[in-house]
Amino acid sequence: MAKTASIKSFAVIGGDLRQVYLSGLLAADGYNVFATGFDREVEVSKDVIRLRSAEETVKKSNCVVLPLPYSVDGLTINAPYARAPITVEDIIKAAMPGTIIVGGKLNDEIIGTAESAGIKLIDYYQREELAVLNTIPTAEGAIQIAMEELPITIHGANCLVAGFGRVAKTLCHALYALGADVTACARKCADLAWIRTLGYNAVNISDLERTVGKFDVVFNTIPAVVLSEEILSNLKKECLVIDLASKPGGVDFETAGRIGIKTIWALSLPGKVAPITSGAIVKDTILNIIDEEVAK
Amino acid sequence: MAKTASIKSFAVIGGDLRQVYLSGLLAADGYNVFATGFDREVEVSKDVIRLRSAEETVKKSNCVVLPLPYSVDGLTINAPYARAPITVEDIIKAAMPGTIIVGGKLNDEIIGTAESAGIKLIDYYQREELAVLNTIPTAEGAIQIAMEELPITIHGANCLVAGFGRVAKTLCHALYALGADVTACARKCADLAWIRTLGYNAVNISDLERTVGKFDVVFNTIPAVVLSEEILSNLKKECLVIDLASKPGGVDFETAGRIGIKTIWALSLPGKVAPITSGAIVKDTILNIIDEEVAK
Amino acid sequence: MAKTASIKSFAVIGGDLRQVYLSGLLAADGYNVFATGFDREVEVSKDVIRLRSAEETVKKSNCVVLPLPYSVDGLTINAPYARAPITVEDIIKAAMPGTIIVGGKLNDEIIGTAESAGIKLIDYYQREELAVLNTIPTAEGAIQIAMEELPITIHGANCLVAGFGRVAKTLCHALYALGADVTACARKCADLAWIRTLGYNAVNISDLERTVGKFDVVFNTIPAVVLSEEILSNLKKECLVIDLASKPGGVDFETAGRIGIKTIWALSLPGKVAPITSGAIVKDTILNIIDEEVAK
Amino acid sequence: MAKTASIKSFAVIGGDLRQVYLSGLLAADGYNVFATGFDREVEVSKDVIRLRSAEETVKKSNCVVLPLPYSVDGLTINAPYARAPITVEDIIKAAMPGTIIVGGKLNDEIIGTAESAGIKLIDYYQREELAVLNTIPTAEGAIQIAMEELPITIHGANCLVAGFGRVAKTLCHALYALGADVTACARKCADLAWIRTLGYNAVNISDLERTVGKFDVVFNTIPAVVLSEEILSNLKKECLVIDLASKPGGVDFETAGRIGIKTIWALSLPGKVAPITSGAIVKDTILNIIDEEVAK
Repeated sequence: MAKTASIKSFAVIGGDLRQVYLSGLLAADGYNVFATGFDREVEVSKDVIRLRSAEETVKKSNCVVLPLPYSVDGLTINAPYARAPITVEDIIKAAMPGTIIVGGKLNDEIIGTAESAGIKLIDYYQREELAVLNTIPTAEGAIQIAMEELPITIHGANCLVAGFGRVAKTLCHALYALGADVTACARKCADLAWIRTLGYNAVNISDLERTVGKFDVVFNTIPAVVLSEEILSNLKKECLVIDLASKPGGVDFETAGRIGIKTIWALSLPGKVAPITSGAIVKDTILNIIDEEVAK
Repeated sequence: MAKTASIKSFAVIGGDLRQVYLSGLLAADGYNVFATGFDREVEVSKDVIRLRSAEETVKKSNCVVLPLPYSVDGLTINAPYARAPITVEDIIKAAMPGTIIVGGKLNDEIIGTAESAGIKLIDYYQREELAVLNTIPTAEGAIQIAMEELPITIHGANCLVAGFGRVAKTLCHALYALGADVTACARKCADLAWIRTLGYNAVNISDLERTVGKFDVVFNTIPAVVLSEEILSNLKKECLVIDLASKPGGVDFETAGRIGIKTIWALSLPGKVAPITSGAIVKDTILNIIDEEVAK
Repeated sequence: MAKTASIKSFAVIGGDLRQVYLSGLLAADGYNVFATGFDREVEVSKDVIRLRSAEETVKKSNCVVLPLPYSVDGLTINAPYARAPITVEDIIKAAMPGTIIVGGKLNDEIIGTAESAGIKLIDYYQREELAVLNTIPTAEGAIQIAMEELPITIHGANCLVAGFGRVAKTLCHALYALGADVTACARKCADLAWIRTLGYNAVNISDLERTVGKFDVVFNTIPAVVLSEEILSNLKKECLVIDLASKPGGVDFETAGRIGIKTIWALSLPGKVAPITSGAIVKDTILNIIDEEVAK
Repeated sequence: MAKTASIKSFAVIGGDLRQVYLSGLLAADGYNVFATGFDREVEVSKDVIRLRSAEETVKKSNCVVLPLPYSVDGLTINAPYARAPITVEDIIKAAMPGTIIVGGKLNDEIIGTAESAGIKLIDYYQREELAVLNTIPTAEGAIQIAMEELPITIHGANCLVAGFGRVAKTLCHALYALGADVTACARKCADLAWIRTLGYNAVNISDLERTVGKFDVVFNTIPAVVLSEEILSNLKKECLVIDLASKPGGVDFETAGRIGIKTIWALSLPGKVAPITSGAIVKDTILNIIDEEVAK
């Protein structure tokens, strides 16, 4: 990845291991990298300059990188390795006009606040390429869980992937590659056509109830209760359910518990299973954002 | 594929080998199939009832299947195996109200004419699932040409696929599977992310000129002149160019000819390389259309 | 798998979860299955008839299945779920002439003892198909460990597989399928040719020292100290070493520990990571043995 | 490929396009390359020095490369592009003691003659790595034929590969990768285990008669009449048979002709479908031979 013109210094503020690795990767690319919020239990690249003061860190940089999510409470930066809290407000105040601040899962309010101060605030979690590349650690994390939980190999296992969005595509690809018997279910004819084209078994969601009894493991990627009581009660009792869908989840957990279907709700896998890869994905996305901003 | 409710009889009118096979596949599914326009040199399934008169064929059916494209001149049905011309007007006149007529590459005028007569006329070539499934014979046709033309194996060949739409995705998949060193080029960050996720080399189109010299074969899928003089003159002289893009094509053919780059413009591969598979794809698409119409 | 002629009843004696599942799978195939040695903490298929007495179990059967390994001490059957010890001698004494006894890792002495009593004793662990099929759970177990230990995804990881025997072949296949950058090293020209043919990077073992510095993870399959001090000291310090080689192992563990290379010696993975699949593999192998014995 | 110590000059004598390309590839590696026997219709690299006299060509070199096969009649070199015949005797006579002569399909007599003259004569066609690497162009050639002949795509086709030797392994791999439904048949339990491990359907040859009716194409790799009258008469009539087995072939051609099964006997595919790749494979093999001879 070439050094992006006109950005020379990055401030990396808080976050988990992904941010720690991200700071090292930016430094390895040749940028000046200042960091704050990595005070304990964590090894930071020696090419990264660590500062006590968040304000100072921000002032030295023309791009500020906040974590994913940037904050849990909306007031302080999400910084599990920091000794003292870092407030969002202090970061924005410290930034000079012209500074680009990037962060994950920003809310509209903070974006408005920044823009009125002449600061460009951009949410990298909204970027399609980040979502695409994050399917890799998500799929591997899901497969790792299946390997750990199942008394059979993935090779030869009857696997259902519910949905055929981004995560499902990468997950099907990996399961198939490992020799699983992969079925994906979807509703749209075009999705079902892609499923057949890629060599998987295609099942229309409306036929799921009838066919679901053969699966050894079900991976759900649809953020709606696809695994309803009707579907769950047709699963074989040893079937493992891994739910990758965010927010409400895709499983009627109450019913699953009652009838004894083991269900694992696996969220935010990328940062957990592969923090270096995830940090690199965020880095690539940020450099894309800067390229586009600079080109404006 | 289950028998679609309420449609009992199909009329298959004209077309090439795809239509011939399609008529047999519908009959094998248990439908009554009447056909006209297959008079010579062609073997039709004995379960298909062949009639002389197109009008009679249409009247016996509640779904009429026209070929892809339905017509070359806009007046007569595209029917290379027919002894006498079959006019589009006669087909529409013969259809009872309530009949569904499906065909490929219909123009707006004929759709209007039909609708004013109470006939539903639907273009299956507009269906996304047909476009997706047709990527399979298109990709295989392109690979067959490369195998025939190149003095090297696909395994180990440096292959560039320009674009990352439907055809490109399936073509990259197949080339990679055969052991080629696959590079795909695109402009959008999300496409480049998918290219990396799937294991291919990703090149931004803006960097193409600089990197194009290493390829043994270039497959273009972009319907715009991507392979301009600048790009062509950086290819090595033995490089083969296979252009899969429709209409204007993606190659500056004049320049390619002048500097001696062998270029093959390969259009309409599905019907040529795999007429049975292509007929089956059209059949599946038509049954999807009928399902949706019946559900209305 | 068809029911093998002339064998009607199996005795399953002791062993771990693999034997438990194996007993259920044989019963599901329609055989009479008697079992002993599964007294606690273990759920046995209700189609398996459990008996207290090992002698009685043997007498009711014309094929006796001992575990893998059949014994740890050479005197008693390896039976972790049994309440009381079962002696090897009692089993052999109880068997009628004509009975086939199969077990894993039998020693010559016990085979001799049995034959002099007119009992056929066959070691299924010697069978090539068992070794081949066991590469699947071994490879998946190795990948699971790598996923658990590495802060990066397998996709994109630089992986070295040392050796190109059975396990290495299946492991390379799976790693490559997951999108890893796979290098295999071997000594023989023919092995190196297969490595290239399958699309992996081929390195001659004699060049390993020079090239080993780029790998994120090394899987050893060679039962000789390939990862000597010279090689280990050229690894990058974050590199993970997973040793799959039996007996002496393939790593100079003392040096690895001294220079801080994390090394995991992963033995007997099939029974640990996928006891059902492993039980099924043993079952298929035993049925092959019986087919051949019956055909004699 | 590093320059092999102590060999400085190669003589390339006769042969088809493979030898032509081979001469260019050796020259590109930095060797002095002299060639004879490429007089017409053929473009030779300008880095290769072409000589009229075979004797002179041999004398200037310390390694002489004869074609594959080295001779058709045992007396003259197989040299389709030569104007005048080149005798084998003259080549051997011209070689100085210490010269290495390599060629393909040498007979024992000529090896004896050479050795008594102090010349080392080595058959590269006997080398395992050449056989392995040649499976790549063989498999691609077989697939090209299937693509050209079949009215269906390889994707989704029911393909049988008879045998599971070298060619079969690579062919199954490529067919499976293209999305075919691949079945391989073999007799040995270990081969059947590998077939299952790699994800293909495994059929015991003894069950072939019963299962052969579903295939769209059969590739034979076994040099014995596997496709006997019993098997052929159970094929569906549109099934295509591609025989890759040498010498007697694996098909009862007379019966196939009588019952109307289309059969293609495809021999010596590497040189036909991919002469550059084949030339490179011969080159790599020759350099391996020299390495081993020099190390002696």
